[in-house]
Amino acid sequence: MSSWRDYAKKVVPYVPGEQPAMKFAVKLNTNENPYPPAPRVSKALEQFPAESLRLYPDPEARGLVRAIAARYGVESGQVFVGVGSDDVLATAFLTFFTGGKKILFPDVTYSFYPVWADCYGIPYEKVPLDAEWKIDPAQYTGDIGGIIFANPNAPTGIALPLDGVREILERNREVLVIVDEAYVDFGGESAVSLLDEYDNLLVVQTFSKSRSLAGLRIGYALGSEEMIRALMNVRCSINSYTMSRPAIEAGTAALEDEEYFNMTLDAIVDTREETKEALTEMGFTCLDSQANFLFVTHPDAQAEALYRELKDREVFVRYFAQPRIDNWLRITVGTPRQMQILLDALRRILHAR
Amino acid sequence: MSSWRDYAKKVVPYVPGEQPAMKFAVKLNTNENPYPPAPRVSKALEQFPAESLRLYPDPEARGLVRAIAARYGVESGQVFVGVGSDDVLATAFLTFFTGGKKILFPDVTYSFYPVWADCYGIPYEKVPLDAEWKIDPAQYTGDIGGIIFANPNAPTGIALPLDGVREILERNREVLVIVDEAYVDFGGESAVSLLDEYDNLLVVQTFSKSRSLAGLRIGYALGSEEMIRALMNVRCSINSYTMSRPAIEAGTAALEDEEYFNMTLDAIVDTREETKEALTEMGFTCLDSQANFLFVTHPDAQAEALYRELKDREVFVRYFAQPRIDNWLRITVGTPRQMQILLDALRRILHAR
Repeated sequence: MSSWRDYAKKVVPYVPGEQPAMKFAVKLNTNENPYPPAPRVSKALEQFPAESLRLYPDPEARGLVRAIAARYGVESGQVFVGVGSDDVLATAFLTFFTGGKKILFPDVTYSFYPVWADCYGIPYEKVPLDAEWKIDPAQYTGDIGGIIFANPNAPTGIALPLDGVREILERNREVLVIVDEAYVDFGGESAVSLLDEYDNLLVVQTFSKSRSLAGLRIGYALGSEEMIRALMNVRCSINSYTMSRPAIEAGTAALEDEEYFNMTLDAIVDTREETKEALTEMGFTCLDSQANFLFVTHPDAQAEALYRELKDREVFVRYFAQPRIDNWLRITVGTPRQMQILLDALRRILHAR
Repeated sequence: MSSWRDYAKKVVPYVPGEQPAMKFAVKLNTNENPYPPAPRVSKALEQFPAESLRLYPDPEARGLVRAIAARYGVESGQVFVGVGSDDVLATAFLTFFTGGKKILFPDVTYSFYPVWADCYGIPYEKVPLDAEWKIDPAQYTGDIGGIIFANPNAPTGIALPLDGVREILERNREVLVIVDEAYVDFGGESAVSLLDEYDNLLVVQTFSKSRSLAGLRIGYALGSEEMIRALMNVRCSINSYTMSRPAIEAGTAALEDEEYFNMTLDAIVDTREETKEALTEMGFTCLDSQANFLFVTHPDAQAEALYRELKDREVFVRYFAQPRIDNWLRITVGTPRQMQILLDALRRILHAR
């Protein structure tokens, strides 16, 4: 006898990093920003008129869209917002990649790409990073339905220079190329400057990392007006109102404080470089990161064991039990104090071996 | 030459009711609650620690899930939350209805059902409401992949008694039946009481209507733990974190004030019955609504003309240019004062004809 179970979709979901309940845990496992959001965000929430919640939000989230457009020097019609960049990317996969042709992405990259592809029945091929863990633009070619890559890439942190992005766009003028720039503000070169030249380019960014707003859920895509309309049509075929009123208000406020934004970015970049130096002195190999995390391996210690021993000391880093990277750890750049605790813990662990 | 345009998904999106910008418009077109959310919601937002936004929310939104479970006397594992009930319903369509078999829903109902079906490539058949605009349970049968109906139905407002819901469940024990109870708190009988008996039942509700939180975006589904796990797996294959921290906090607070909740419900039901009486006196036919809106038609005035003339007077109601219902208006129940403005406007319009 058949039942609804036979027809229920079977998927293997993405597994996000742990959210430890311990109050004093050092949480360096989900690339969150160690600094609070801009003071204007607190103010926007404090002053938020709760009575307005009885009304639906603007389905186009125009206030927020206009602020993002102004920040990047594009038209409002070139901006699509969603519930974090995962929502934006999932919508883009469903909108642009379900045409039947295989898409390409790096073999080592954000592990959500194959999950979305499987969820929407999209064929795909993983393109190996080169021996230096870099994206080789020459490999991105063929009879394909689209391309997505993260820049800087995750979990490597390595950025592809803008010339490389341009090469991929040039080789694939008729195919949609999504550049996932979740970490670009920490040192990468954004492809936003290429939007005028390439109508096959979609750039996706997020408020979760550089703007310290992971808990508010805001991501966005920048592209041609035609592309954004296609995204909007699919989004409006799923949910009319995705952005809550508090998210629209607080997100708009977050864009009003560039000075605070730059200050926190500078602090994270400084801490990243100091931490990299200290880890290198301890014998770690650290890839050249332009993101808010470091991807590291040690010749004398298994990454999985280090991950577990750090966890025992309430220091959480990210370990991926995946081919090629299963002897590496991804460590989020926190405050100088958090990194000191991490380094002390690693020293003790390595010393005790 | 082919291009990304050829592969982009073509969909006809759902069109939500207008969101007029005029400050003093009487907005009776999207079934929003005329009363503000519970005072504890304001308090939760005022006291919300903005610095916590730097961290991702709990992907399982456990605080909110526990509060909903306690409210309905079910286990936490039987609750799925999403960004409004549209998000919950869309996820349920993708999870349970993409097995290839046609699904059934009423011909006159929430107009998002065919949109989701088209978006995910789900075949469907519309089952006509009977001559009295009611759902006939005997018509819901056959070799099908699932059933969805709204109870009370929209835009009619008519509720199917629990015996009718039970009949549909009995006739389709092996098929998933979704009961969309967006409006149930205004007078319908909830199928939550049937969850223990039927493992093929999924009940979907929302905070947008009866809890005055359309702007916060919270909906939820109640079902068996197995069913909720299947929903969670698909959701986690699309977006790890859909519920923002402010939504989890304020939504949980909304459930702590049953007294306020019942007070606003009573006020809306009273206003609905008074308005129905006044409209009937003016010659309107009003269906017997158990929701927070009235579905009405007048023998001497075209609905579309009335809709436009009301709009000219800054009174917004909903008109659907759809077969069978294109001479009807759906009017949200607002405050007594708003309904007075509506009734005065209608009197003047009808008098001037």
